[in-house]
Amino acid sequence: MKNTKALSILITILATCLNHSIALSDSDHKHNATTVTGYVYQQEFMPRQTLEIDLNKTAIFITDPQNDFISEGGAGWSLVGEGVVAGKVVERLVQLRNTARTVGIPVFYSTHMYTKKDYDNWTSLNGIDKIMFENKLFIQGTWGHDFHPDLKPDGNTIVLNPHKGLSNFWTGDAALQLRQYGVTTLIMTGMVANMCVESHARDAIENGFDLIIVADATAAAGADALKAAHINYEFLAHEVVTTDEIIKRLHKAKAEKN
Amino acid sequence: MKNTKALSILITILATCLNHSIALSDSDHKHNATTVTGYVYQQEFMPRQTLEIDLNKTAIFITDPQNDFISEGGAGWSLVGEGVVAGKVVERLVQLRNTARTVGIPVFYSTHMYTKKDYDNWTSLNGIDKIMFENKLFIQGTWGHDFHPDLKPDGNTIVLNPHKGLSNFWTGDAALQLRQYGVTTLIMTGMVANMCVESHARDAIENGFDLIIVADATAAAGADALKAAHINYEFLAHEVVTTDEIIKRLHKAKAEKN
Amino acid sequence: MKNTKALSILITILATCLNHSIALSDSDHKHNATTVTGYVYQQEFMPRQTLEIDLNKTAIFITDPQNDFISEGGAGWSLVGEGVVAGKVVERLVQLRNTARTVGIPVFYSTHMYTKKDYDNWTSLNGIDKIMFENKLFIQGTWGHDFHPDLKPDGNTIVLNPHKGLSNFWTGDAALQLRQYGVTTLIMTGMVANMCVESHARDAIENGFDLIIVADATAAAGADALKAAHINYEFLAHEVVTTDEIIKRLHKAKAEKN
Amino acid sequence: MKNTKALSILITILATCLNHSIALSDSDHKHNATTVTGYVYQQEFMPRQTLEIDLNKTAIFITDPQNDFISEGGAGWSLVGEGVVAGKVVERLVQLRNTARTVGIPVFYSTHMYTKKDYDNWTSLNGIDKIMFENKLFIQGTWGHDFHPDLKPDGNTIVLNPHKGLSNFWTGDAALQLRQYGVTTLIMTGMVANMCVESHARDAIENGFDLIIVADATAAAGADALKAAHINYEFLAHEVVTTDEIIKRLHKAKAEKN
Repeated sequence: MKNTKALSILITILATCLNHSIALSDSDHKHNATTVTGYVYQQEFMPRQTLEIDLNKTAIFITDPQNDFISEGGAGWSLVGEGVVAGKVVERLVQLRNTARTVGIPVFYSTHMYTKKDYDNWTSLNGIDKIMFENKLFIQGTWGHDFHPDLKPDGNTIVLNPHKGLSNFWTGDAALQLRQYGVTTLIMTGMVANMCVESHARDAIENGFDLIIVADATAAAGADALKAAHINYEFLAHEVVTTDEIIKRLHKAKAEKN
Repeated sequence: MKNTKALSILITILATCLNHSIALSDSDHKHNATTVTGYVYQQEFMPRQTLEIDLNKTAIFITDPQNDFISEGGAGWSLVGEGVVAGKVVERLVQLRNTARTVGIPVFYSTHMYTKKDYDNWTSLNGIDKIMFENKLFIQGTWGHDFHPDLKPDGNTIVLNPHKGLSNFWTGDAALQLRQYGVTTLIMTGMVANMCVESHARDAIENGFDLIIVADATAAAGADALKAAHINYEFLAHEVVTTDEIIKRLHKAKAEKN
Repeated sequence: MKNTKALSILITILATCLNHSIALSDSDHKHNATTVTGYVYQQEFMPRQTLEIDLNKTAIFITDPQNDFISEGGAGWSLVGEGVVAGKVVERLVQLRNTARTVGIPVFYSTHMYTKKDYDNWTSLNGIDKIMFENKLFIQGTWGHDFHPDLKPDGNTIVLNPHKGLSNFWTGDAALQLRQYGVTTLIMTGMVANMCVESHARDAIENGFDLIIVADATAAAGADALKAAHINYEFLAHEVVTTDEIIKRLHKAKAEKN
Repeated sequence: MKNTKALSILITILATCLNHSIALSDSDHKHNATTVTGYVYQQEFMPRQTLEIDLNKTAIFITDPQNDFISEGGAGWSLVGEGVVAGKVVERLVQLRNTARTVGIPVFYSTHMYTKKDYDNWTSLNGIDKIMFENKLFIQGTWGHDFHPDLKPDGNTIVLNPHKGLSNFWTGDAALQLRQYGVTTLIMTGMVANMCVESHARDAIENGFDLIIVADATAAAGADALKAAHINYEFLAHEVVTTDEIIKRLHKAKAEKN
């Protein structure tokens, strides 16, 4: 039993190394042309599929593109800033929203928001709540709650009612808005990988949406948390993709539509 | 940058090793008396708290205690069976439900169920759906859908409407039932760690429940998936505990109540 | 003020008389050919629209087609039986489900169900709950909980997880199932008009479904309750229709599809 | 059959007259001391109960206290203004919120809000949506969307995320916020009687809240719509009360608490 476990741990370590080199680095490695832009699944047993993109029913869905998470100096920067920089999160979110405009699909923003009253009065705080509350993230009307300057909403952005827990499907208007726009497929990413992105992902599938998660336009509080998200995305999503890959497919869908 | 990353990976590996030895083994190591039964957090930055147990408002909440996941020969056994055995999942679930009866708190069962019609007609299948559908899990009326023989409902069990996605809060009656019983604190565990347990956990906090997750009475499809669950539980729960620890606290609460 | 109010009451009475003669009677009055099958709106200020029926995205949705409501001898018969007979509810529901099969659209059943444990333990009972509980309606496994013999599920019926409150969208799997079948338009009716039908209607629009309510295939506990439902349907639905009218339109849609 | 129906209609008319004189008038009639402040049920078969008020778990919940509904000149005034004046809605809402402050319970505001983008892009509009959109109600940032001047939030008010459909439980944070404040009993009223108040009421009971509806601090688009709300409240609420009655009971609860 001990030996099996030791072996299992060694394999895990090896897998972790390999995965890290693949999933986290942008430039340190070489892939051949066919796989360079694709997400490499970490769990061999996961079924794979490639959704056909119908631009009339597809939207980009970005969680928490706000200063407290993705701008230096934000109240959550000490926790997730390193990952935001390493993962080029802002650059990739900008690429995704620009692509959306080019190919003619909407972008939904689900933002995190607390009032001062929430901070004064909430009584039931779990782990992530405590982190949020101790660091005073996302207070209504503050700079930290505002959008990253490169990601201000434009004419192509639908800003949802803010969410308070981890998912807009519970405390905002995500489900209704998406249906009003005729959206059935979500290309989801944003911040934080294993918290709000993942909770939105779980609720999207409970509501019958087809779900594509962009695994490299997100970050988390540490490598473990990011890996937890990636592992779970493979179960939750119809497809896990990279930014490069989905952008190519969106352009292809646009070209075929014309 | 490369060196930093290499160092970071090494630290992760080291941490992983330590965590594995602590979190996964039951008997191979020695702790001193005060920590032996407690869950060891893997993320140093997580705040900790200890909820006071009010037996009048607390329930055990178990997801998917059904043959397809936790009985040898179940349709999901090849994926999660090893973890179920290693984690002594059945034994611990039995301990928890027995303790519930002893201390006088209810046990809620959230079961997974599909009809044959679902199998024939559903059109939007994500990763976990595909695994479920390929292996034909939890078909209404089958042995696989039935409860594990050691965990049949008794007079102290409330069997919720079955769930179809990953969480009863979306496709069953969990929220209403729990409120009807005056429950505000959930002691949650069951199967599978990073799927149904975690989705129920996320929805419990969206609905304002205090949440204690029992980390060692669950299992998953592989070490990565189990670790993903543990990492996320630390964010999602008010407390992560072990079976031994929570049983002691429940007995203590009972003793103090009398 | 008094005079105005008196006048207002007289107008209401007059309007009520007219409405009753139109909405409640089946055969006592004469309409010209163009309006005979249509629902007559009781509120002049309501906007009207006629949805185009896309058979690929449309379903019949029937609430509580169970003995306790629509079979003589059911536990709720003393309350709603007179309305069920007067409104020919069973006959019309049978017509609707037969039409669904003919034109090739699915029928969803949302059933009401309580367990004996619910009856023994629920603590928060509102008005309708008290009526249900005092009359012991819809107990799992009883004849009253079973389907009306003329409305047993067939190969074209999707039986949803049962609901416990008034709407399957809260305690069942309605939203997910409908999306899995690609349904975006609901033709809704069943029992009871101002309770479960209306609650399902309200939740359908919160989830972005297009909603057609069949006003004359339902009944309620008294004329006031039925009228309340009709008044509210005019606000809630995209269209309020009669059984005859919607059946004609479904056949027309089928003919045009071929 | 015809005679029975005629008789039934006459009885309904008579009942309607009586109900109107009781439910709608404030001063034109005399009651004896015991009933003067209480709501008179219109449906004899409804069970009655009187909840014990626990001030630690009770809140006032007001829907849509905004200019477009309750201020002269609001975009919805032509539809509901007469009812707002006749029912003294603003005065009663002010009384209720003042009482809340005096007895030390919180007031929750659930507001209605649309963005200009919603107005430009929503595709699925039911009856009430069409009325809202044609009259351009509740546009974010406008006077019409703002609170009535006598009902501006104060230190005792929790302003929820805005709702878009008819109920905050679907598109806002009502459920989570109420649980964070430890609220289990809602004293609900506001605007419009048969739309947002009633939808919030339905969702409150789906979530297991005890529900008291204040029937005379609300109004609707016409007498039929108001009566529809009252009829349905009797089913949905644990208790239907008047403003005077609940204020007395809140003061009594406060006195007994001290």
